[in-house]
Amino acid sequence: MDTKQRVGWIGTGVMGRSMCGHLIAAGHTTLVYNRSPEKASGLVEKGATLCRTIVELASKSDVIFSMVGFPEEVEAVYFGEQGVLKQARPGSLLIDMGTTPPSMAVQIAQTASSLGLQTLDAPVSGGDIGAREARLSIMVGGDEGAFRRGLPYFEKMGRSIVYQGPSGCGQHTKLVNQTLIAANMVGLCEALLYAYRAGLEMDRVLESVSSGAAGSWSLSNLGPRILKGDFQPGFFVDHIVKDLGIVLAEAARMRLSLPGLALAHQLYVALQAASHGQSGTQALVHALANLNHLPWPPPPRGAAG
Amino acid sequence: MDTKQRVGWIGTGVMGRSMCGHLIAAGHTTLVYNRSPEKASGLVEKGATLCRTIVELASKSDVIFSMVGFPEEVEAVYFGEQGVLKQARPGSLLIDMGTTPPSMAVQIAQTASSLGLQTLDAPVSGGDIGAREARLSIMVGGDEGAFRRGLPYFEKMGRSIVYQGPSGCGQHTKLVNQTLIAANMVGLCEALLYAYRAGLEMDRVLESVSSGAAGSWSLSNLGPRILKGDFQPGFFVDHIVKDLGIVLAEAARMRLSLPGLALAHQLYVALQAASHGQSGTQALVHALANLNHLPWPPPPRGAAG
Repeated sequence: MDTKQRVGWIGTGVMGRSMCGHLIAAGHTTLVYNRSPEKASGLVEKGATLCRTIVELASKSDVIFSMVGFPEEVEAVYFGEQGVLKQARPGSLLIDMGTTPPSMAVQIAQTASSLGLQTLDAPVSGGDIGAREARLSIMVGGDEGAFRRGLPYFEKMGRSIVYQGPSGCGQHTKLVNQTLIAANMVGLCEALLYAYRAGLEMDRVLESVSSGAAGSWSLSNLGPRILKGDFQPGFFVDHIVKDLGIVLAEAARMRLSLPGLALAHQLYVALQAASHGQSGTQALVHALANLNHLPWPPPPRGAAG
Repeated sequence: MDTKQRVGWIGTGVMGRSMCGHLIAAGHTTLVYNRSPEKASGLVEKGATLCRTIVELASKSDVIFSMVGFPEEVEAVYFGEQGVLKQARPGSLLIDMGTTPPSMAVQIAQTASSLGLQTLDAPVSGGDIGAREARLSIMVGGDEGAFRRGLPYFEKMGRSIVYQGPSGCGQHTKLVNQTLIAANMVGLCEALLYAYRAGLEMDRVLESVSSGAAGSWSLSNLGPRILKGDFQPGFFVDHIVKDLGIVLAEAARMRLSLPGLALAHQLYVALQAASHGQSGTQALVHALANLNHLPWPPPPRGAAG
């Protein structure tokens, strides 16, 4: 990796902070920007330079990463008058690692190309733990030349790094990932509610169903947390609602009907209505429990109706 | 295991044949019965005695297993005038290893108890391969004494054997298993359709999403088969429709609304309408492709709209 390339990092939330930290540790001169600068203080302690504006960051960086939450923020970061596209130096590589609508990724790439800039869309999966332990799955879209330039950086943050095709394909792949996760969560929560109402010993049920054809990462990792009533966020409900909204909009644009995903989206919206936007996605069990006027977690055995 | 106990086995289809074979191999005197006797010929070659009627089988057995398909058949096998309950000798243990409505399992247990018979409901998961290799997950309901009596037999057929509670609890647990599988399959097929319409390289997408939080047994094992257009049955569509119908009926009886499962059930019914009843459950992709007027498997890349 050419550590003479100066790195700019925009967005130092839970994920971005860990990911950027790996690049600093690898020896890069790193500039950071965050709307709330105090959230970048940990990185400054590790040696990063805090920038007050994107203009300042862009003018001094060779490779610029972004990891911000919602499409409106991504749009502001890239397309604003003081944004990356207007301010980056020719030849810079811009890498968006958040989950952004594929159509916006294509728009960024086209504008960038006309300005002599390279881009990649490179969203990730693996959550805060994956980010911390540099074990993310990174799904990359863009020109292959840009991919080769970005690869050494990705290798510091992730374990599965797959080139998925032209601009937008990284984002499309991430949406496939979110579709799988959301549908599986609906099934997991309905299955647990059924087990509860049938009066089963939930731990024994998980033992029987986890290792066979019904097995999944969510069942093994989130099933036990749902039973304990542990709704700490690995991934926020507010973010999955955003992501599923993007899938549905992109699918509708392609004239693709996805009834299961639409249902999952609606149940997650109901979960926001029940004030669970900042819970983890496994809190979906509340939406289905509410629908059925059931408490969750289940009351001690014997007390169930 | 007390090999002096004579075993009766009713139902020698794909699953039952392998399971019964393990008991013969363990040294049990084994009697077999099947509505179509020719399907029991392999077991007769291994040393089993073919019975022409359930009456004959029941009069000579100490432990009687059943592995038949649909609730109407289970009902006939147990409650018929020439059925197991009327014909079994007092003290016999009756074990139903098919997927039967939990309420019927309870009915069988109650009638049996009044006749001095023991029962277990012990449905399995793991498919034809699991049955052949004695690696089934066996979910057991019934009295604990009966469970202890049945355990040595189960250990010849399965690897994960979990006592789930009183009669019916084995069946309830199996329904939890089917709920998980069905919902996950909807997500898997919708995700693959999205990937196809987005123009992605499907193999690369599977590589990115399989190992992380979206990972599941179905994704790893059936995802590649769906892409290849391999719809050979591991588990028949006709059987999952039956099982999901049981879940929905039991859930409705318990006043439990399961919208995701209801959708999965309807999509599987649509798949039967498209003449896929004898395909494997992964054929669900056809129901969703049909809904969207899309061909499956996808035409060669570049040809997609």
